[in-house]
Amino acid sequence: MDSSANQLMNRPILASIHTAAFRHNLRRIRELAPQSKIWSVIKAKAYGHTLEAALAGLESTDGFAILDIQDAQWLRAHGWQGRILLLEGIFQKEVLSLAEELKCDLVVHSELQVQWLEAYQGSSEHGLSIFLKLNSGMNRLGLRPTEYRTAFHRLHAAGYRMHHMTHFANADRVDRLPSVGEQMECFQEAIAGLEAPTSLANSAAILWHRNTLGDWIRPGILLYGVSPTGIYADIVRSDFQAVMHLRSEIIDIQEIKKGEHIGYGGRYEAPEDMRIGVVAGGYADGYPRHAADGTPVWIEAAGDDGVGVICPIAGQVSMDMITVDLRNAPNARVGSLVELWGNEIPVDDVAQMSGTIGYELLCALASRVPVKVI
Amino acid sequence: MDSSANQLMNRPILASIHTAAFRHNLRRIRELAPQSKIWSVIKAKAYGHTLEAALAGLESTDGFAILDIQDAQWLRAHGWQGRILLLEGIFQKEVLSLAEELKCDLVVHSELQVQWLEAYQGSSEHGLSIFLKLNSGMNRLGLRPTEYRTAFHRLHAAGYRMHHMTHFANADRVDRLPSVGEQMECFQEAIAGLEAPTSLANSAAILWHRNTLGDWIRPGILLYGVSPTGIYADIVRSDFQAVMHLRSEIIDIQEIKKGEHIGYGGRYEAPEDMRIGVVAGGYADGYPRHAADGTPVWIEAAGDDGVGVICPIAGQVSMDMITVDLRNAPNARVGSLVELWGNEIPVDDVAQMSGTIGYELLCALASRVPVKVI
Repeated sequence: MDSSANQLMNRPILASIHTAAFRHNLRRIRELAPQSKIWSVIKAKAYGHTLEAALAGLESTDGFAILDIQDAQWLRAHGWQGRILLLEGIFQKEVLSLAEELKCDLVVHSELQVQWLEAYQGSSEHGLSIFLKLNSGMNRLGLRPTEYRTAFHRLHAAGYRMHHMTHFANADRVDRLPSVGEQMECFQEAIAGLEAPTSLANSAAILWHRNTLGDWIRPGILLYGVSPTGIYADIVRSDFQAVMHLRSEIIDIQEIKKGEHIGYGGRYEAPEDMRIGVVAGGYADGYPRHAADGTPVWIEAAGDDGVGVICPIAGQVSMDMITVDLRNAPNARVGSLVELWGNEIPVDDVAQMSGTIGYELLCALASRVPVKVI
Repeated sequence: MDSSANQLMNRPILASIHTAAFRHNLRRIRELAPQSKIWSVIKAKAYGHTLEAALAGLESTDGFAILDIQDAQWLRAHGWQGRILLLEGIFQKEVLSLAEELKCDLVVHSELQVQWLEAYQGSSEHGLSIFLKLNSGMNRLGLRPTEYRTAFHRLHAAGYRMHHMTHFANADRVDRLPSVGEQMECFQEAIAGLEAPTSLANSAAILWHRNTLGDWIRPGILLYGVSPTGIYADIVRSDFQAVMHLRSEIIDIQEIKKGEHIGYGGRYEAPEDMRIGVVAGGYADGYPRHAADGTPVWIEAAGDDGVGVICPIAGQVSMDMITVDLRNAPNARVGSLVELWGNEIPVDDVAQMSGTIGYELLCALASRVPVKVI
């Protein structure tokens, strides 16, 4: 689809993806963990940012971590020669030969996968590389310590190149169980005496649990310039940049009388006579329907000088439209640029006003929104 | 993309779209409003169901109502010769000639659009058809009564074929302002003496405000078998069928001890020793991260006989995985079929447990989920 042609006749909403911000964020992560190699996590279409943009912006990574093997095919077809990790391994044993052909590293998290690998007669020349996943307390995927040690020996004996891996449930908070400390203890015990490189740290652990870095870190949300806690203040001093900017325009303005109601359910009642801006963007674009009155949007004041003001949304987000209180923006008019999230409005702030985290909003960007990689 | 090949190597999640259910639902709507013509609202890629499926299942509609003019191009390219309504009209005046070429009906909701049309020198032969939109209290898009009457006269004088249109804020509830009655009164007053066909009723009005049907109804969510109120009980006796079935499989099972925690934040604590099923599906697929513990999923009991049990989710939904309490499903195993929503689990029930409405979930189906039109 020719997105520039679309922009001429489309609703004005557009997501721009800034590869320079990707490069900056990856550099920052290297500074935080100079001894570790980096799996850049780009599953879910690079958290909504597109594989194309991720490959362009993150080409100096050591490897890409993904979920769907099609993404490995895409990366190889587009020239990526570094490593690729399949984060949940394979879902059918028939896919093993394709994974080997694509030179993928495989996560192994279940007894069934161990059996598939034991039975597999691959090309002995290359030899698959395995990240064996320990369930150290997350209780989602992974083998329990005893099974883990057995599986390690079995796969090692079968000739695979082994790595140790686990995942933290609460690296972003200190008040929940299991703690990072507990999980680390479990991990150290489970791998004792089994020599192999390690991979533990997600974004939150890279920032706040510096004893967990290990040989391979796995940054996800930080690459996109978003906070692992869901609270932007937690990373504001860490110098990360928003990669996705979601912008649109005011398509209509309503003059509302005091006491009138706005939108579905009439949730917002005008406290005085005021102007309401209607922005092209709604939950079918990926903007959260949960967003409360007061969720900030940024509106360019005038011209292209990048000066603008923050205005609060007013009324229930609809499928295709957002209504905004324009009392802070007396110069706003039909056609004024609006940022829904990005540089001026951290996606974390929108998420917080919607009871979720930035991850969900980025991934939920709808396919009908044109994307421009810059 | 060849989705059958994908299914062989993919994660097992799949959305199937049932065109027979589309046909059934459209027939039911005709029974409810036999005197009215039907605009089938298929914006937002047919609420996530794909235009392809909508065209196949809803071909006996009188017209399709959409948002993006590209969708009109797609419909014409795929043989649709009936009417097409652009629900927000055009966003740039340069697009008028394309809209005319595609024989679109246009909503006109702002003074700016009125000016564009007055200035437009189209092919007089065809003559554009206009649905002039009144703001009767929704306070989102539309002209106020006085402007409305003037705009009607101006566009009528310019030779356009005129229709009256408005949109209800609260057809799905009786406890909010403005009421349907208030909006109807405003509408009747605004159009008094201006002869033209009318279009007012959305899905909720078709069901519950039978005095508002007018000449063209505009069903959206009902076409998809989902409740306009967000509560499935409200339509359960009205005989609509779910069009989208979102299904996946159990990819792993964890044996959990009493007191252990599941997933991010450790939200769920096991009340006894139990099995937890890990389902391939998460918020990056469009399943809501908000879903509370207890949100139902359906798990096939054994074999392909369609018998199954309801199990509650247990633990925070992750980006790619959902964890489920398997105590109701002692026979569940890796590979068991899971319905996230569809026939067995109304999407409304998932939405309710997530603080939203079915509309949002359907539209949020992620592009990484393979879709099969049946």
